[in-house]
Amino acid sequence: MDLRTIEWKNGQIKIVDQTKLPGKLEYLYIRDLKTLWHAIKELKVRGAPALGAAAGLGVYLGVKDSKAKTFARFYGELDKVIRYLGSSRPTAKNLFWGLERMGSAAIKNQEKAITEIKKILFDEAQKIIEEDRSACRKIGIYGAKLINKFDTIMTVCNAGILATIDYGTALGVIYRAGEEGKKVKVFACETRPLLQGARLTVWELKRKGVDVTLNCDNMAAILMAQGKIDKVIAGADRIAVNGDTANKIGTYSLAVLAHHHKIPFYIAAPSSTFDLSIKSGKGIVIEQRNSCEVTDLFYKRKMSHKAVKVFNPAFDVTPHNLITAIITEKGVIRAPFSKNIKRVIKSCKG
Amino acid sequence: MDLRTIEWKNGQIKIVDQTKLPGKLEYLYIRDLKTLWHAIKELKVRGAPALGAAAGLGVYLGVKDSKAKTFARFYGELDKVIRYLGSSRPTAKNLFWGLERMGSAAIKNQEKAITEIKKILFDEAQKIIEEDRSACRKIGIYGAKLINKFDTIMTVCNAGILATIDYGTALGVIYRAGEEGKKVKVFACETRPLLQGARLTVWELKRKGVDVTLNCDNMAAILMAQGKIDKVIAGADRIAVNGDTANKIGTYSLAVLAHHHKIPFYIAAPSSTFDLSIKSGKGIVIEQRNSCEVTDLFYKRKMSHKAVKVFNPAFDVTPHNLITAIITEKGVIRAPFSKNIKRVIKSCKG
Repeated sequence: MDLRTIEWKNGQIKIVDQTKLPGKLEYLYIRDLKTLWHAIKELKVRGAPALGAAAGLGVYLGVKDSKAKTFARFYGELDKVIRYLGSSRPTAKNLFWGLERMGSAAIKNQEKAITEIKKILFDEAQKIIEEDRSACRKIGIYGAKLINKFDTIMTVCNAGILATIDYGTALGVIYRAGEEGKKVKVFACETRPLLQGARLTVWELKRKGVDVTLNCDNMAAILMAQGKIDKVIAGADRIAVNGDTANKIGTYSLAVLAHHHKIPFYIAAPSSTFDLSIKSGKGIVIEQRNSCEVTDLFYKRKMSHKAVKVFNPAFDVTPHNLITAIITEKGVIRAPFSKNIKRVIKSCKG
Repeated sequence: MDLRTIEWKNGQIKIVDQTKLPGKLEYLYIRDLKTLWHAIKELKVRGAPALGAAAGLGVYLGVKDSKAKTFARFYGELDKVIRYLGSSRPTAKNLFWGLERMGSAAIKNQEKAITEIKKILFDEAQKIIEEDRSACRKIGIYGAKLINKFDTIMTVCNAGILATIDYGTALGVIYRAGEEGKKVKVFACETRPLLQGARLTVWELKRKGVDVTLNCDNMAAILMAQGKIDKVIAGADRIAVNGDTANKIGTYSLAVLAHHHKIPFYIAAPSSTFDLSIKSGKGIVIEQRNSCEVTDLFYKRKMSHKAVKVFNPAFDVTPHNLITAIITEKGVIRAPFSKNIKRVIKSCKG
């Protein structure tokens, strides 16, 4: 990839500041946890898989200069870092998955010297990044098999390069199909309120030369009715064991509309997105965000009454019966989801 | 009404400049046709019924200073005015209905003196306004009967005071229900790209003390799934004889979503919105608007790639089978629509 959304560079976490796109491509160098916490909260770094990497690198950043002499003390500090980073955004499973994984790596190696454990944690963070890269590629390969040569695909939010370490999940499928010579076209839903579709997806698809058209979210239905959409592919922030999928707000709407118009609706996500401890979507905590995201465009201009009540969930849950299949790096999972998710995901998580 | 969206005042057309809301309530005084044409095109005055009034007053404005000595010459000028105003926005039936009505009034009185015909045209424009006022009230009365005491109603765009001469069509039903002591709550879809819901509907409902919550268009589905919406009511720009209804983009999406969640979906519109010359929605011309409405928020800040293709229809068509009923000033029309629309509307237009 010519573009790295998040990486470790010269003792700091280097990220693309996604709030500056599409205006300019600007990098942020993060040296402290508070800056990282705000970068996650304010969506400077975003996208479920990228948050897994942020968790890994963030935990290392938080403990690398620890002066602790005992593991108990070291682990106390590490646990505080994990709790702190976990308080930034509640819905994306990958964030917690990354944090837990770092915690486990420390515990597993508690007999070792602290300097050794620090090195192990750094390696673990790098491993998370490497695994995400590999997962993106495999999701692309599995997903591209579902795409026909002249398909037009609708997507929502940004599940691409900017949301992962590599070329994305939903957009990874599109990039891979392109590499295989398929002439895929894309309709990008702008994704209110923060316009990740308009700002990020269009920017990265254009950069890669993909034929993309931007539509407002409320135009998706009529595009489907006009026969212009062959498939819908979205990413995921958390997937319950029955397949119910939390993703960017508006995903559920697209799933209902696709169902009504008999259009296949796919989720593309790495296995780190699955939360096997949650039976169904009802158990997924949905992040509620600040109302000014809706009333003020990027806090610049008031678009509504200053005292209006606002409904602004960041995510919604798409029930499994509206999902045609879930594309993962372990293969494509279809109904019955409860059985097949357990089989495919559990067998690998051990 | 304490607020007049459009009226004749001191030899000019006085309108609320709706592009300035909710920031400030500013009036525009229009003395020439070109300014009126731009005011319609740029949505300074908007809403199907208000456009009927703009047509009436606009035609009078265009011919009131005519120096024509013969009817043939006068009618030539009048016809030019009608064609010019008709070229501003193609979808709203009421605009054309108003223009045609003014043309017919002239023809019917062609034997009279030109000064006399001018007076008749002024009176006809006032009659259009009076009839719209009365239609709003009747739609409110018929519609409020469909509303239960604690209903929460979702609406889209602005079909209220700012879209009509009186208290609106869809919002008229809500205002009337309130007057009857019903404790109605409203969810206003923001209505991208021009945010008429966020800017106008919230502003006027707040002004009237109605309990309103703003949501992005892509959040409508999850609100329905959570059982928070009892009814959806939208306005209309043009209704075909089979009930297929063109309205602000996003209306069709809400109709599909309401259908999926088994929520009644109503259209509220005066009879001037029906186009009995059109058999179905396929015959309705949909206005395509400038892509910068989507990429630039009010032309202030770029929100996407400057060269992205944009899908930006102003309206969509909701097929009649997704509509529970159409509330008009002649009564509530239900399926079979082809039969009942002809019966209710034709009988009055003849």
